[in-house]
Amino acid sequence: MTVDMRSPFRIVLLATGGTIEKSYDAAAGTLTLDAPVIETLLDALDQPDVQIEVRRVMSVDSLDMGEAERAAIVAAARACLVDDAPDAILITHGTDTLAQTAAALAGSLAGLDRAVVLTGAMRPYRVAASDAAQNVAQAVMAARLLGPGVYAAFHGRVIPAGRIVKDYDRLTLVEQST
Amino acid sequence: MTVDMRSPFRIVLLATGGTIEKSYDAAAGTLTLDAPVIETLLDALDQPDVQIEVRRVMSVDSLDMGEAERAAIVAAARACLVDDAPDAILITHGTDTLAQTAAALAGSLAGLDRAVVLTGAMRPYRVAASDAAQNVAQAVMAARLLGPGVYAAFHGRVIPAGRIVKDYDRLTLVEQST
Amino acid sequence: MTVDMRSPFRIVLLATGGTIEKSYDAAAGTLTLDAPVIETLLDALDQPDVQIEVRRVMSVDSLDMGEAERAAIVAAARACLVDDAPDAILITHGTDTLAQTAAALAGSLAGLDRAVVLTGAMRPYRVAASDAAQNVAQAVMAARLLGPGVYAAFHGRVIPAGRIVKDYDRLTLVEQST
Amino acid sequence: MTVDMRSPFRIVLLATGGTIEKSYDAAAGTLTLDAPVIETLLDALDQPDVQIEVRRVMSVDSLDMGEAERAAIVAAARACLVDDAPDAILITHGTDTLAQTAAALAGSLAGLDRAVVLTGAMRPYRVAASDAAQNVAQAVMAARLLGPGVYAAFHGRVIPAGRIVKDYDRLTLVEQST
Repeated sequence: MTVDMRSPFRIVLLATGGTIEKSYDAAAGTLTLDAPVIETLLDALDQPDVQIEVRRVMSVDSLDMGEAERAAIVAAARACLVDDAPDAILITHGTDTLAQTAAALAGSLAGLDRAVVLTGAMRPYRVAASDAAQNVAQAVMAARLLGPGVYAAFHGRVIPAGRIVKDYDRLTLVEQST
Repeated sequence: MTVDMRSPFRIVLLATGGTIEKSYDAAAGTLTLDAPVIETLLDALDQPDVQIEVRRVMSVDSLDMGEAERAAIVAAARACLVDDAPDAILITHGTDTLAQTAAALAGSLAGLDRAVVLTGAMRPYRVAASDAAQNVAQAVMAARLLGPGVYAAFHGRVIPAGRIVKDYDRLTLVEQST
Repeated sequence: MTVDMRSPFRIVLLATGGTIEKSYDAAAGTLTLDAPVIETLLDALDQPDVQIEVRRVMSVDSLDMGEAERAAIVAAARACLVDDAPDAILITHGTDTLAQTAAALAGSLAGLDRAVVLTGAMRPYRVAASDAAQNVAQAVMAARLLGPGVYAAFHGRVIPAGRIVKDYDRLTLVEQST
Repeated sequence: MTVDMRSPFRIVLLATGGTIEKSYDAAAGTLTLDAPVIETLLDALDQPDVQIEVRRVMSVDSLDMGEAERAAIVAAARACLVDDAPDAILITHGTDTLAQTAAALAGSLAGLDRAVVLTGAMRPYRVAASDAAQNVAQAVMAARLLGPGVYAAFHGRVIPAGRIVKDYDRLTLVEQST
């Protein structure tokens, strides 16, 4: 694998909501998806030659995603590949249906010539002991090193689309055993 | 590239000191290398199927490393490859002479069949706005995805040994231009 | 006022639940009162001659408190005054009915000869930008300096029982104007 | 003691440097007093009716303070009492000579009719496990509740000027025993 790390690496990040983006609303007394979080998370990362542009697709809990939402994410990814030609696409997403969205992307993006990496978190970025910053940092590194394809990067692991399973006992994403 | 992400990924981390490990000593009023830091940093990462064993090689500022220290690190890496056969080696190291240690490792580990990834930080893990956790998280992902060789993983970038340069203006490690 | 600050200052802290103690349950995807939080918060404070003993009275959202819960808190405070004779009592409590509990305590603890200080938080201790540690730290200082009586200490302010009002617009506790 | 907590409480904070304000300079690889810290610390406190105006007097390690520096701090406090008439004065200061500055203030501010509270930290605000935010939060509460006089507020304790001693073993400020 020869990777040129000397030019800026351009990523478009499609933000869709999910646990990673939940923040505490003191008036409501609950976690909501009302405040921007991804930008704050990215500001805390130090990676001077990685350029990440955040694009908001939706702000929903992934349990509330259906076919329409998945189609919108696929359309956003396709438009981004055509219009922006980034070096890679990152998608932040709830973990409950991340596998379905990854499968939809893999099935729809024919001739994909770069990496599309989905990630998220089991604990919101704005909550103690969150895994959000780790997952996004590792997803950036995975996006930079992986060849073309659709993957989840999560908890130090890369899983190809079509094999992603949420493990509700261990609270992580794992690769389906065959 | 086919990477099996279903078995535990076993890493030996050789800790050598450097800025990443400095912590505040309130009695002395300065940053020192007296307290363990790497274990605390790793505890904060959530990667259930990555097994990281920390091995202390030394605790020195990399400006104070000479040939003897570099030889000790090379010897520790070689012993580890023979005795433990981990899936990858991580080395935490000061940034001032990380390039020299990487070059020494690349020159000495003939027939290396896995990744050896060096990382560190510009700001100690125990200081606000540190890049330490990001760098270690990304180094783990790089170690998992890279083929055999000696590399630095730093600030979202992978740089092969022999081409690593510290950029004192931008406070990062960069790849030497040809 | 003459305050002897040379002996240890002994506080019994009655924990009752409330927003201050909510923590994220990744399996449920919500904030719950299932995990101990007050002990962790107190461990992060540095006050070597303040001895705080935590006693769990209940773990409820203060919106769910009724007369029975308030009676239990009053009984716990009374028992503590008799059995332990601490220098002061701290009570962590949800903000929605903190005023009612303070009034019940003031009405029931006849001949009270030390400070009983209630506090809580608008944002859980385990959430970013929480006011919990500040409020507890300031409540400790208030408990040390105030004379006998029942008070709320909140957001840098001390409010006597009977005059506490939750300001739902500004998300704080204020003193009732006359 | 009757304290009116319904009007804003106006504090002038005289910043003088000290450990509390040290932050990491990645270029130098050491802790310095070059960056503003007190404003960031105050922004993290939630106390809507406490108005704190920060005034920079100097930025020095308190071991480097001599008679000239102490005279400058006394002059700044005196000018502030005359010109601004705040409800209280807070002074952030290194711990090594905080006792001497408190004594100088107590000896010079004849007829002082409000509280002057000095505080600081054993660990910089920008370092893990810092006591800085706790000390400032408690100093604000002490300033609000104490009568006229010069005091240190530190680690949950109030100590009158003339009796402050740094305990180098326990790393705290204590009250001199008689």
